[in-house]
This record gives sequence, structure tokens and C-alpha cells, in this order.
Amino acid sequence: MSKIITISREYGSGGKYIGELTAKKLGIPFYDKEIMEKIAEETGFVREFVEKLAEYAPSGSIFAYAFVGRNRAGESIEDYIHAAQRKIILELAEKGDCVIVGRSADYILKGKHETVDVFIHGDMAAKTERVCRFHGVSPADAEKLLRDTDKKRSVNYKYYTGETWGEAKNYTLTLNSTKIGIERCADIIAEIYKNT
Amino acid sequence: MSKIITISREYGSGGKYIGELTAKKLGIPFYDKEIMEKIAEETGFVREFVEKLAEYAPSGSIFAYAFVGRNRAGESIEDYIHAAQRKIILELAEKGDCVIVGRSADYILKGKHETVDVFIHGDMAAKTERVCRFHGVSPADAEKLLRDTDKKRSVNYKYYTGETWGEAKNYTLTLNSTKIGIERCADIIAEIYKNT
Repeated sequence: MSKIITISREYGSGGKYIGELTAKKLGIPFYDKEIMEKIAEETGFVREFVEKLAEYAPSGSIFAYAFVGRNRAGESIEDYIHAAQRKIILELAEKGDCVIVGRSADYILKGKHETVDVFIHGDMAAKTERVCRFHGVSPADAEKLLRDTDKKRSVNYKYYTGETWGEAKNYTLTLNSTKIGIERCADIIAEIYKNT
Repeated sequence: MSKIITISREYGSGGKYIGELTAKKLGIPFYDKEIMEKIAEETGFVREFVEKLAEYAPSGSIFAYAFVGRNRAGESIEDYIHAAQRKIILELAEKGDCVIVGRSADYILKGKHETVDVFIHGDMAAKTERVCRFHGVSPADAEKLLRDTDKKRSVNYKYYTGETWGEAKNYTLTLNSTKIGIERCADIIAEIYKNT
């Protein structure tokens, strides 16, 4: 059984960076969405997906599939991707201790591994400033982007877990990164990880 | 402006004790419901309330009032008590740094003082065991007691603040006392208090 830190986070709260910092402090691997997608590609999940599409798309084009949005098993694209990511998260967890950001990993690993489940949030002004700085967008665009992204994360979490995203009871701890500070958040998480 | 730790907590989670421990570690006063009620009595809030009731109860008895449940200003008993407690919380906060448990203190002090807002929760089995041990009741009664108490706290919080009790975004940090441990929770809160 591995000991895993799962991090859920509001967009712009610095949660992903806090995850990276924590992993570095503890000397354990760090996995985020991009890394998991890369693994999916290498292990053939994405290849398999594209092949499946090509297989029954009337014109041989995946666009026809994208239009219909379901494969022959009645699975939506989102369900297919979610299932692939779920499989990868379980495989990564089997390999050993690590930090995983996003993808409802807290729910996927519940009862299967020892976890420290973290939710990172922040004040709107600080999150907006962070998104402007990193993505070079206007404050209005940043605010729209973070509201839309968080709404999507919240709906996805509800859909796949039946639970409420950001509700304290689903996490070992939740931290306001604006009030507490990015570095200190990583220190607190690492400390709890070492002592539980 | 004072620096105040507000603690909201699930029944049986040890939140009140964590508040006491934190206050002791920091050398600042600790106030809970009982202490605030005592202050209300001393300062005349409760006396004033009883006098008000006697004033217009048809038979001179407060039972007539209790039956009607509203005073002449159309205020319910709950609203009256809440207003008195709100006044006391604001007065205590003016006096200086402290730890306040419960009574939506996080919401009452928002923007008026510098606060570290904490929510403590725990696993059902641990909370039940704690309530059995401290109140000498059966596990079934303990579970009913904690569900009923938390439902009341949640409804009250929504009524007086419009916000959702136990939602991460309302707190600086939330901690699962079962996973993290009572002592360590107090250490983490004291540490954040000193460094924010």
C-alpha cells in the first residue's frame, strides 16, 4: 500500500505548484494532468482510443465520432478518458508514494491506498492576479477563465464521485493559499504526510 | 484590530478542545458558548431578555411568550439570542487577540478583525467514540446526537450567513482531526496564527 498525497485545487490558487513543491520536499514523484496524458500516450491508451474511433467512424474520420460523441458501447468521450485516467492513477499509485494533482484522485484511491487528501483554494483577487501573470490575459478574461474552469471541475467531481467538490469533509485538510502562502502550504502538507 | 482564531466544528470532532489547546499554546483567551452565556448573564443581556418577556407576557409569565415565540418587535427568541451573542463576540474581539469557538464568529468578524478561520471535522467512528466516552451514551444515541447537532449548526449557519457550513472557501483552513490528531491540529493552527 502506497502513501499518496492527492491535491484538488481551484484554478489560479497555486495548487499545482504547491503539489510540485511538496513532492520535492519529500523526494517523491509528482504527477499532474500533462504527465498523466503523456503516460497515457506512451502506454497506448490514447493510441487505443484513436484506433477505436477510426474503427467505426463511417468515413474513417474521427470527426464523425466527435459529432456523435459516443462509441459503440454507449460511452461518452469524457467517460472513456476518465476511465483511462482512472487506470493510470491506480497504476501510478501501485508503483509507490507520490503526489497526484487533480482528476478526482482522492476519490479513485479512497480505501485502496493511504492518502492525505488536500484541497487548495484562494481569494478571488489573488487568483485573478496569478492567472493574468502566468497566462498574459486581462483581469476580466482571467476571472471568466477561473470561474468556468472551477465550474467544470465541480460538475465533473459531482458526476464521477457523487460528492461535493471543495466540501471540507472530503479532504484531510483544505488551505487558503492566499492567506497562508504557497511555501507554507507545502510545508504544512509535507509535515502532515510525515506524521500520519 | 485584533487577531482572532475562530473555530467551527462538527460535534464530536474535538474542535472545542483543539481551540482550548491552541489558546493555551499562544497564551491568549479562549471563549466558547458557555463562557459567552456567562458573560451575557453578567453584562445583563439575559436579565434584559427576561425582563422584556415579563413586560408584555399577558399573565406576567414567560411561558406565554415561549408559546408565542416572538417579542413585540417580531423577533424570534433565536434571533434575539443570536443578536446578543453577536454583540458579545464583537465586544470580546475589541478587547484583543483570542480564540472563539462556534456561533458563526467567522462570519460576524469578517472584515472587522484579522482572523484565522478554522473548521474541524472528523470520521464518523471516531466522533461517535468520542461522544460515547464524554457523555456516557450508547453508540446509536451518540450518532443520532451528532447528526442532529450538526444539522442544526449547518441550518443556523445558512440562516445567519447565507453561506454553506463546512465549505472550504469559508475558512482559512479545515482539518480532519481523526486523521491529523488533536494535538497536531492545535500545533498547525498556532503555527499559521503566528505566521500570518
